[in-house]
Amino acid sequence: MSAALHDPTHHGFASDNISGVHPEVLEAIAVANGGHLISYGADPYTARLQEVVRGHFGDRATAYPVFNGTGANVASLAMLTERWDAVVCAETAHINVDECGAPEKLAGVKLLPVPAPDGKLTPELVARYAWGFGEEHHAQPAVVSVAQSTEVGTAYSPDELRALAEAAHDKGMSLHVDGSRLGNAAAALGCGLGDLTTAVGVDVLSLGGTKNGLLGAEAVVVLNPDAVRGPLYVRKLLGQLPSKMRFTSAQLIALYEGDLWHRSASHANAMAARLAAGVRDLPGVRLTQDVAVNAVFAVVPPDVADRLRERYFFYDWNASTGEVRWMCSFDTTADDVDEFVSAITAALA
Amino acid sequence: MSAALHDPTHHGFASDNISGVHPEVLEAIAVANGGHLISYGADPYTARLQEVVRGHFGDRATAYPVFNGTGANVASLAMLTERWDAVVCAETAHINVDECGAPEKLAGVKLLPVPAPDGKLTPELVARYAWGFGEEHHAQPAVVSVAQSTEVGTAYSPDELRALAEAAHDKGMSLHVDGSRLGNAAAALGCGLGDLTTAVGVDVLSLGGTKNGLLGAEAVVVLNPDAVRGPLYVRKLLGQLPSKMRFTSAQLIALYEGDLWHRSASHANAMAARLAAGVRDLPGVRLTQDVAVNAVFAVVPPDVADRLRERYFFYDWNASTGEVRWMCSFDTTADDVDEFVSAITAALA
Amino acid sequence: MSAALHDPTHHGFASDNISGVHPEVLEAIAVANGGHLISYGADPYTARLQEVVRGHFGDRATAYPVFNGTGANVASLAMLTERWDAVVCAETAHINVDECGAPEKLAGVKLLPVPAPDGKLTPELVARYAWGFGEEHHAQPAVVSVAQSTEVGTAYSPDELRALAEAAHDKGMSLHVDGSRLGNAAAALGCGLGDLTTAVGVDVLSLGGTKNGLLGAEAVVVLNPDAVRGPLYVRKLLGQLPSKMRFTSAQLIALYEGDLWHRSASHANAMAARLAAGVRDLPGVRLTQDVAVNAVFAVVPPDVADRLRERYFFYDWNASTGEVRWMCSFDTTADDVDEFVSAITAALA
Amino acid sequence: MSAALHDPTHHGFASDNISGVHPEVLEAIAVANGGHLISYGADPYTARLQEVVRGHFGDRATAYPVFNGTGANVASLAMLTERWDAVVCAETAHINVDECGAPEKLAGVKLLPVPAPDGKLTPELVARYAWGFGEEHHAQPAVVSVAQSTEVGTAYSPDELRALAEAAHDKGMSLHVDGSRLGNAAAALGCGLGDLTTAVGVDVLSLGGTKNGLLGAEAVVVLNPDAVRGPLYVRKLLGQLPSKMRFTSAQLIALYEGDLWHRSASHANAMAARLAAGVRDLPGVRLTQDVAVNAVFAVVPPDVADRLRERYFFYDWNASTGEVRWMCSFDTTADDVDEFVSAITAALA
Repeated sequence: MSAALHDPTHHGFASDNISGVHPEVLEAIAVANGGHLISYGADPYTARLQEVVRGHFGDRATAYPVFNGTGANVASLAMLTERWDAVVCAETAHINVDECGAPEKLAGVKLLPVPAPDGKLTPELVARYAWGFGEEHHAQPAVVSVAQSTEVGTAYSPDELRALAEAAHDKGMSLHVDGSRLGNAAAALGCGLGDLTTAVGVDVLSLGGTKNGLLGAEAVVVLNPDAVRGPLYVRKLLGQLPSKMRFTSAQLIALYEGDLWHRSASHANAMAARLAAGVRDLPGVRLTQDVAVNAVFAVVPPDVADRLRERYFFYDWNASTGEVRWMCSFDTTADDVDEFVSAITAALA
Repeated sequence: MSAALHDPTHHGFASDNISGVHPEVLEAIAVANGGHLISYGADPYTARLQEVVRGHFGDRATAYPVFNGTGANVASLAMLTERWDAVVCAETAHINVDECGAPEKLAGVKLLPVPAPDGKLTPELVARYAWGFGEEHHAQPAVVSVAQSTEVGTAYSPDELRALAEAAHDKGMSLHVDGSRLGNAAAALGCGLGDLTTAVGVDVLSLGGTKNGLLGAEAVVVLNPDAVRGPLYVRKLLGQLPSKMRFTSAQLIALYEGDLWHRSASHANAMAARLAAGVRDLPGVRLTQDVAVNAVFAVVPPDVADRLRERYFFYDWNASTGEVRWMCSFDTTADDVDEFVSAITAALA
Repeated sequence: MSAALHDPTHHGFASDNISGVHPEVLEAIAVANGGHLISYGADPYTARLQEVVRGHFGDRATAYPVFNGTGANVASLAMLTERWDAVVCAETAHINVDECGAPEKLAGVKLLPVPAPDGKLTPELVARYAWGFGEEHHAQPAVVSVAQSTEVGTAYSPDELRALAEAAHDKGMSLHVDGSRLGNAAAALGCGLGDLTTAVGVDVLSLGGTKNGLLGAEAVVVLNPDAVRGPLYVRKLLGQLPSKMRFTSAQLIALYEGDLWHRSASHANAMAARLAAGVRDLPGVRLTQDVAVNAVFAVVPPDVADRLRERYFFYDWNASTGEVRWMCSFDTTADDVDEFVSAITAALA
Repeated sequence: MSAALHDPTHHGFASDNISGVHPEVLEAIAVANGGHLISYGADPYTARLQEVVRGHFGDRATAYPVFNGTGANVASLAMLTERWDAVVCAETAHINVDECGAPEKLAGVKLLPVPAPDGKLTPELVARYAWGFGEEHHAQPAVVSVAQSTEVGTAYSPDELRALAEAAHDKGMSLHVDGSRLGNAAAALGCGLGDLTTAVGVDVLSLGGTKNGLLGAEAVVVLNPDAVRGPLYVRKLLGQLPSKMRFTSAQLIALYEGDLWHRSASHANAMAARLAAGVRDLPGVRLTQDVAVNAVFAVVPPDVADRLRERYFFYDWNASTGEVRWMCSFDTTADDVDEFVSAITAALA
């Protein structure tokens, strides 16, 4: 296969996983290639990754590289729970709607989904859905799981996360963060990755990568080792142990050792802001969420969405209301955005 | 990370997953990069992969790319079984000893492990372990799962596989092949990939890649669509759906579209043969299995193994007997082998 | 143990499972005793039960006796689903709040809980929560599960159930009824058991018994055999296959062969109506649900509940609002009710 | 149903669960009836049961009544294991062959079945099958599970059990005893129930009842509370929590408070000894196991078995060798045995 089968100049807005691999990441993979290295993590790239992760998340942090976000989330929840436990999450959570039931079906956790229009939990919402402690008839609430940034493009402030961590810990629960877009949140909030996690009391983090320019790499990062059991076994039995882990670790190093995560996330965020600014005042378009990171949620007339889809694939978020989702990536350009705004404008006409 | 953290010239014999990525595969990944492509498989690389797979396995074949071998195996078994089913496999099977119980814990299948010194099942062994059909007290034997080549470096002839398929089908069971090293078997037997699978009645195949020079890519290949239920859902819920699937598919295309799979596997096999030839007559070394593919199993005195491990990492296969495993990769060189034979000779002295 | 350890004259209102065994049921157990009978269901009592069940539910019905309600529900859902499926139920459903996550943890189904203040689903609610058909990212909605009567003491009319069955079937889903109190609903509605199930399109029924005077016996009743897979295996692997099934079947025969189910349920319903009538106009008491069957839900001041509990144990339904649940049994007497009303009145004073 | 549907005078030899309920047990159920008692175990019968159990098993013992043997075994294993654990058992173990895979499918444990012709494990066998401690690729051996008496009618001496407990504990594993016929073993060995369990280091016991004259009651008895996690939750989520627990506990009290367990078990054992003595010297019959308790295993010519089955139902144990199983119950009479011996003699003629 010497020639590409696709148009490498086409850019769309369907998701931040429709983009490819950042060139610096491809280079890191090439650098890690050659020679033989012990598989399953006993390699110097995975060792270096631990240093990188500790730089962000503190000395107690350990990274367990995995293949994808579902893997990171299910492994995190499995490490944090007993067989009889339940997990409080927003109704919009990826673990609730986009993982084909993997948390229930693989980790055996019961989800307690909380209606939350902006995708964010609060201590009050947690208190309402986490109850029945000590009663054998009830799956025991053991984890609060939030996404940072959320699936609807909003973000928690550090104080909001700290309040959730305190609420969780007060009940003997743990706090898990689905950070598949943690970099976008940190870039948007102008803080470090640790400021949103270790510093505010998060116990376990699903650290993203694929949506920020990696080929395919995420990690469970255990911030509080006292909160988990059996991380190595859990990762393995869930089918999430890469044999040639040097390449998974090398990708994560490429993203998080320097500032690539920040450059890429800031750029994607800026492109979403540009897109939001371009469409906000168009008649017929209504933005439905804060554009905190790299996603724009909007209601548009169905026929407009249909016309637009002739050139651009994107997802309905809520077909009944006409809400759609547009996302920007590390390699979305200002021209891409401007052309898309023009296309939306034309479709509205 | 601009500089390698490892010695790219060191080669060892611990496994065929300690090697890295074949240069043609890295190139294919680069070619598939750039631009935006719909994620989760609706891309032209995954479409092309279907053509490649059908070229090998016939028109009814469909490939479902996944991350790793455990994922391919567990997904295969889940597609082939009901909740109450059991799977007959060799006691030495990877699914039985090296997946931390994932078949039981994720797919909920009961394994019926069969003692088989050469790692190979026979219709007679299957008949002895597959019983209780129709009795509600017994997990129902539904699948015969074999590895080709096996975990102990042996291989089934096409006739042996055909006999197993017939035995399985006669009982209403399916035949699954763990083909993480299918290329090695085909190269050794001088036949095509389809000759060992579709032509002899295999229902579902775990098609390997990582152990033959890919970065990380395998596929469930459904050969008999009537034997499976819900392949797309099963892959997703098991956490084995790559979002940027173009890269998974591109790796598999690079391996299987042309003759890379055969070149690499033949070479690894030849290196193992060279290694076997080099040590066979050394006093104190006893080969314990046919060297059909790229693995050499041998009994060596414990102190010899220890001395050898000062330079080369490798696994005990059976610590109580002193049996060890040495494996060759696509990039193992004749010099590597000769040096290793010299090291063994020296350690024996 | 020749003497009772408890006061056999005390009656309370905590649940309909605090009562014991109806004397006719004890007698039926004694009649089935003596001699040896093949275990696990190949006995004449289980055969007779099939006739009894077909008398109520039609010729396609088959009963699978089990131990308890959680067993009946989880077995029903497991028979009706694939690994990747989801079940729509009311947020108040027993399967959602009172089974410690057994549907998720044993059957691996994802629950889609629907807020429903009166405990009842509607086609509109089902449509809102059952979506994503054919999308691999979503657990596939496969079953609508309702309780008749509901956990909050309300009941569906036959027309309401028919509409749910049609809505479910239109989407390719099945309708399951948790009928742990089906008799109470039928008695209240003045119709037969089949009128609420087979006649309106229910596919699988958890047929209750324990809450209507049995020692401990329920049954999965498959009304539509085309909707289920592997009922015998599912019951067994869930640990719900009674070895001395003659006694489980004899209990169910005692309840459903004649009119015992109707006598007992009507009586319990009447006692709840008497209780509701007695407290409805008391200042400080507010009934929160229709009293359709044998349960009364009321808000009372916390200190009143506390005083009342010095003599009577009962459950908070919603501690934050002061809502409590009072239930009547087959053996609750009018005097019991009147004394309880007096106690409530006194506690309010 | 006023008349029996079966012949209450017929006795057979198919199993010890084809018998009914001992009259003293029926009486105990009747005594526990009447009045209202809090469900799910907060009743005086369940409290008394704890005293009875502590009398046998010591002050640290706690009984968790459940419905049946599969429930007791799966709950025991679930309490003793993490998600990544494995259980060593004899290949003939009930948990391996007669529970439709429930240990794997409900508790998610991997079984490591050990060929053991007499149904008994030894420290040496455990050492051979329990390996890979600390290796993430292997399900971690966490429990040794043995049946006392075994499924093939043999029994462990206290010393044999102590050696197994020591072997297990030395490896950081627990010892579980499937005691569905513990009474038969104790009666045969002339020792107390505690002598076979607490005194020799057993951690968790499945205490039988149904096979020794109960209607349907078993218990998980935790002897070493430090070895288990979440017993109440595990029982509930496995669907094994009886609501009207007073009756489950009353049955167990009836059996174990006085000497009923010993009377019944001794009698059943004696009847099996009488049967063995009657057939041992018949030409064409070969006993295949020690007759330690209430089961006789024998090889008989197939046509003889067929003729015998015209009057008596019993199970093939190994159809390929002609081995069958005959069992005696608490209510098997000497005349029953003598008639059966005559029938066998006649069938052989």
